[in-house]
Amino acid sequence: MNPRAVYYEGNHTFRLGPGEEVAPGPGDVRLDVAFCGVCGTDVHIAHGAMDHRVQVPQVIGHEMSGTVAELGDGVEGFSVGEAVVVRPLDSRGETSADRGFSHISRNLKFLGIDTPGAFQQSWTVPAFTLHRLPQGIDLQLAALTEPLAVACHDVRRAGLTAGETVIVLGGGPIGLLISLVARHDAASVLIGEINPERIAFAQSLGFDAGPAPEVGDGADVVFEVSGAPAAALAMTELAAVRGRIVLVAIYPEPPPVRLFDFFWKELELRGARVYEPEDYERAIELVASGALPLERLITKVEPLERLPAVFEELARGTQGVKILVDCGA
Amino acid sequence: MNPRAVYYEGNHTFRLGPGEEVAPGPGDVRLDVAFCGVCGTDVHIAHGAMDHRVQVPQVIGHEMSGTVAELGDGVEGFSVGEAVVVRPLDSRGETSADRGFSHISRNLKFLGIDTPGAFQQSWTVPAFTLHRLPQGIDLQLAALTEPLAVACHDVRRAGLTAGETVIVLGGGPIGLLISLVARHDAASVLIGEINPERIAFAQSLGFDAGPAPEVGDGADVVFEVSGAPAAALAMTELAAVRGRIVLVAIYPEPPPVRLFDFFWKELELRGARVYEPEDYERAIELVASGALPLERLITKVEPLERLPAVFEELARGTQGVKILVDCGA
Repeated sequence: MNPRAVYYEGNHTFRLGPGEEVAPGPGDVRLDVAFCGVCGTDVHIAHGAMDHRVQVPQVIGHEMSGTVAELGDGVEGFSVGEAVVVRPLDSRGETSADRGFSHISRNLKFLGIDTPGAFQQSWTVPAFTLHRLPQGIDLQLAALTEPLAVACHDVRRAGLTAGETVIVLGGGPIGLLISLVARHDAASVLIGEINPERIAFAQSLGFDAGPAPEVGDGADVVFEVSGAPAAALAMTELAAVRGRIVLVAIYPEPPPVRLFDFFWKELELRGARVYEPEDYERAIELVASGALPLERLITKVEPLERLPAVFEELARGTQGVKILVDCGA
Repeated sequence: MNPRAVYYEGNHTFRLGPGEEVAPGPGDVRLDVAFCGVCGTDVHIAHGAMDHRVQVPQVIGHEMSGTVAELGDGVEGFSVGEAVVVRPLDSRGETSADRGFSHISRNLKFLGIDTPGAFQQSWTVPAFTLHRLPQGIDLQLAALTEPLAVACHDVRRAGLTAGETVIVLGGGPIGLLISLVARHDAASVLIGEINPERIAFAQSLGFDAGPAPEVGDGADVVFEVSGAPAAALAMTELAAVRGRIVLVAIYPEPPPVRLFDFFWKELELRGARVYEPEDYERAIELVASGALPLERLITKVEPLERLPAVFEELARGTQGVKILVDCGA
């Protein structure tokens, strides 16, 4: 049987169609995709917000787990049948202007946006994007590696230490993952969120969550994950003197920011985008260890052929935390 | 002859009057003030912008040099006749909420704003505010220690290293001092400024200065000293990937800020306010060494009795870089 794939065709439309087993060229690896999560970015693509980067018809998707199916010439260190995840960054266009920060280099290609993605049964990628998974790992949970690596990167950017107080503004998937990692690192975590369903879910994970989080003398670290202009104003008020604010959210327009608070309290703001290899290694370790209740974040698992309908349902509103797509044969 | 003092009386008015030799209480020291610079903050006070903190009639002024005239009980380590400068911060109201950051503690009192200042011949201050000056130092140049310590603090907050590229937005006294310290630390410095007189003066100090500073791949460090909303928008565009922005300016209102750039380039913003003791020590060392052309920044030296007229002249527009007031008998 030929593999199957789901294609974004523009104009909010996805179509199930025949996929392709792309023979891996030198340095490439062909994977059998096991699971692939639906990311907020995929929903943005569905809304047409990234049509300048996505060349339709295109397979999207980047939060995947799978197994090695076929090795291209010169690929070493992997063997057929091994479980892997893909760190979907291709920084081969890096220049000296990027000052060594490959993961955010100017010519960075993001697999599943700028190149074909993982919402298909067979996916061929450069071998340098692979991270090996420990034997026996649950491939559903392993599909959460990519967003969990985002959270690990954000927490690392914060320089978080045990016992610190943290406010996470935004209780969506990334906000929850940051909260889980920060709590695992022995921080005391509050979540700021206005959506009642998200508040209830965060509380069910044991977090103090609500519309007006507050720490007495201010939080050591504030993660701004919501992208709401009100949060851009609140973040500086919630931080303690010399507090750190990690900016994770994407603000297409420049919102008003209380620069006075940065001066007065000598605050720091640190942008955080995607991840570096060590963030992936930490995320894999956290998935494998079972230290985080990640299974709670998987709202449902849908078969690949249901994906066009899933995007239609998502266009009508948020549905739980994380939808996984079963891309297996 | 009784000492003299200049009093701020509110409503843009200053008056020369009799001063007072306040006998130093336990832990205090009475100083003979030599010189005191006019700070932008003093001009703000003259404009009535700080009437909520200044209790009229009050002597203001905090950029001073002088000599020890009289020691209160229990003061050790200083002797009459020694040259000193005052670090005008009284953090005795510090609490645990300040997390050890005394210099920006919530109950901080700033000498010359919240308490009487140095535009007088005789000034009595707590001994813990004093820094000893090396023998033979020029007391006019030493009166620049306070603003130079601001610049040293800002550069230290930047974590500046030799060879880095720096853009300083704002070519007033603090912007120039930051530029001089950064250049002394072997950084390559550009100054962004729109005022033609300030541009010309910065150029006369050997700086590349103009309305549209730009470094090819972006600056390692941007100092925002101007307080102009246009600069709050430009600062993120001028910074290189993972660049640091040090916020020195005071923005009473929250301006729009390109938070997207913080995310995309993983920028850092660090607020910087006043100074810590080590910044004073470095500033004194720089003054004493003659390494910086500080004498060029002294536009003129006026006698104390001219100070009311100086404030009237300043209300009509900027006058050079730094006006010193000779408070000597």
